[in-house]
Amino acid sequence: ARFGVVYDDSLTTDELQIHNRFTLNIDGSVETDSGIEFFARVRVRGGNTGVAGLTNSGVSAPRVGMSVAGFTLATGNILGAYESAPGIYDGAVGLTGLGWGNLVGNTTVAAFDWDSFSSAGAGSNGVEVIYSNAGFGAHLSHSPSNDRTALNASYNFGDWTVAGAYQDGTTTANDKWALTAGGSFGNFGVGVAFGDNDGLQKWRLNGSASFGAGTTVTAYVAEEDTAGVDMNYGLGFTHSLGGAVLAGGVAGTAGGTTLADLGVRFSF
Amino acid sequence: ARFGVVYDDSLTTDELQIHNRFTLNIDGSVETDSGIEFFARVRVRGGNTGVAGLTNSGVSAPRVGMSVAGFTLATGNILGAYESAPGIYDGAVGLTGLGWGNLVGNTTVAAFDWDSFSSAGAGSNGVEVIYSNAGFGAHLSHSPSNDRTALNASYNFGDWTVAGAYQDGTTTANDKWALTAGGSFGNFGVGVAFGDNDGLQKWRLNGSASFGAGTTVTAYVAEEDTAGVDMNYGLGFTHSLGGAVLAGGVAGTAGGTTLADLGVRFSF
Amino acid sequence: ARFGVVYDDSLTTDELQIHNRFTLNIDGSVETDSGIEFFARVRVRGGNTGVAGLTNSGVSAPRVGMSVAGFTLATGNILGAYESAPGIYDGAVGLTGLGWGNLVGNTTVAAFDWDSFSSAGAGSNGVEVIYSNAGFGAHLSHSPSNDRTALNASYNFGDWTVAGAYQDGTTTANDKWALTAGGSFGNFGVGVAFGDNDGLQKWRLNGSASFGAGTTVTAYVAEEDTAGVDMNYGLGFTHSLGGAVLAGGVAGTAGGTTLADLGVRFSF
Repeated sequence: ARFGVVYDDSLTTDELQIHNRFTLNIDGSVETDSGIEFFARVRVRGGNTGVAGLTNSGVSAPRVGMSVAGFTLATGNILGAYESAPGIYDGAVGLTGLGWGNLVGNTTVAAFDWDSFSSAGAGSNGVEVIYSNAGFGAHLSHSPSNDRTALNASYNFGDWTVAGAYQDGTTTANDKWALTAGGSFGNFGVGVAFGDNDGLQKWRLNGSASFGAGTTVTAYVAEEDTAGVDMNYGLGFTHSLGGAVLAGGVAGTAGGTTLADLGVRFSF
Repeated sequence: ARFGVVYDDSLTTDELQIHNRFTLNIDGSVETDSGIEFFARVRVRGGNTGVAGLTNSGVSAPRVGMSVAGFTLATGNILGAYESAPGIYDGAVGLTGLGWGNLVGNTTVAAFDWDSFSSAGAGSNGVEVIYSNAGFGAHLSHSPSNDRTALNASYNFGDWTVAGAYQDGTTTANDKWALTAGGSFGNFGVGVAFGDNDGLQKWRLNGSASFGAGTTVTAYVAEEDTAGVDMNYGLGFTHSLGGAVLAGGVAGTAGGTTLADLGVRFSF
Repeated sequence: ARFGVVYDDSLTTDELQIHNRFTLNIDGSVETDSGIEFFARVRVRGGNTGVAGLTNSGVSAPRVGMSVAGFTLATGNILGAYESAPGIYDGAVGLTGLGWGNLVGNTTVAAFDWDSFSSAGAGSNGVEVIYSNAGFGAHLSHSPSNDRTALNASYNFGDWTVAGAYQDGTTTANDKWALTAGGSFGNFGVGVAFGDNDGLQKWRLNGSASFGAGTTVTAYVAEEDTAGVDMNYGLGFTHSLGGAVLAGGVAGTAGGTTLADLGVRFSF
């Protein structure tokens, strides 16, 4: 769960809003005598930001599947291969993500136009196969409801990971690919990403540094190839409270909005 | 939970559909010093088939009541006496039930027009009394919202069970009764059912056979007394995976549609 | 959970209705090394009365916050300071509250027009601070969505508690205050309350007596300062079943309706 405040300078009133969120995964699994694990998950998710469109909590559609020998087959509310590529979310700042400008798949034309697990919704009722072995990972997903097919592949060597992701949609606006690379040396982390979204390109550079007793500062810059839009930037920190995390940040969007947040997140 | 694929030859596109389902009962109960058990249940249910009308999961209305000395009194999202009669569901095939043509209460005129526990819905806010003792069982239910009153009675002797069920509705289309008998000898099981649905009669014959290490084959034929409709049939199998069950089947409906499915179901 | 029957003589048909309700709080919390507790709660709530508007269960918006050294800060689906003032709900009778005429904030003009935890809904996404220490309690709440600010303060000394509550709304109809006092001597309890609701005043007098093996009788009278309305009254009992509670009562509303109920409630 998490709670705090969110600031959005594009709002004309109530720029500072109360934010809170609750997440509970309900997981069930069973392992057969032959070593196949069958699993199912639904997620209970709720929370509100500010005063508009307040809602109660919801329970997601299920993701149901099986795992054996490094392979996972899942159906229903799938994770999605583009979404799940290592490095896609690198550079995220703040308590809430602050507009998620760090994702090279999010542009001023479209955002989050790929399959992903819907936390309180229906998802895409797709199917996916995930494989991982000795540092190599691959993930293929397909959703008939959205007509999207996606693939990612990644390789991890020591403290570094490189990944590629690709999505093809019947709606060509959903066609996209991305490359990411990231790693760490000591208390420092760096990452780069480059993506193409049906012809619109975007890059990101991110870095982080850890200090003393559990403090980490993260920053990114990102820019899409659209005339007249701003560079995305984000600067955030997390500080361990020894069981919970204080997190906050500030970000600037391609549209010129400044977002900020501050709060606490914790697991239970 | 369960997942797999479903085939429906009456669809003009996407005859083969992804299917998955998640069920979690949340039960609470307490026993008084005098031995009365009070109980409450809600069910979390979600899942989707194919691409149409995808939904998130829901939480059912509660069933709340008490049990003492072989008697159970329950209110709310009741089970319903017609639905609960032993043998009503006998002969079911496949992962998903494949149209449930094996029920003599389901006809081309109406299906499932009786009170039953709604897995993610409101139910009927009815009341029911259930009694069981020494092989004899009886169940009386009433739902003011649907104006349905139903009764069943059953007797179990050794490996055999006979049962009768009756429902009376203010809507006469809901008037129906059914008789069932079923049992087993060794690795074989057989059953018969006969029902009348506001004058429309239907019979069913079902059988099963178990083989080797946890494989069972089930089949049924059923036919309603309507000119021009097909005989219902179903043929299915289950195979134990030692903690989960592989299930599949094929069925033909009275309307001439062929349905098939294949998948895995498991409990946790 | 609870179940039983409810009677309402203002209904023209089906005066006697089946009632049932299910409540499950899902709580998560974590304590940091420095002794701060972070917590989150959602509530699963369902149930129906009679046949109109039957619904499935829902999951509330979350209440998320932190507690340290007698202080609690919470956001989201807040409890609300007016609602939470000690003594506000004193005198409640029956299984279901029977119209809650015992609350001096409920009148023929408006009822429950203050912030409170929504058991299956969105709540107000507000913020509140609660303090308690050595018998003294205080509670300040604010909801931007409803523009309500409320405060209560209370003091407990031995078997007696006095409290005051105040709410200010941008909608002046929400302006209200209340004073309560209550306590017990031996097997008897008494309480008084007085409130003003945007100029409309209401008082309440309540009392209870406990007998023998776990039986308590509770009664109240209350009256608002509106010409032509009846005095509110309520008379109820609870009887311990040694793990569950049998409860029932009868009440008369300001509008002249007679309500009654009888049933069992239990926790698990």
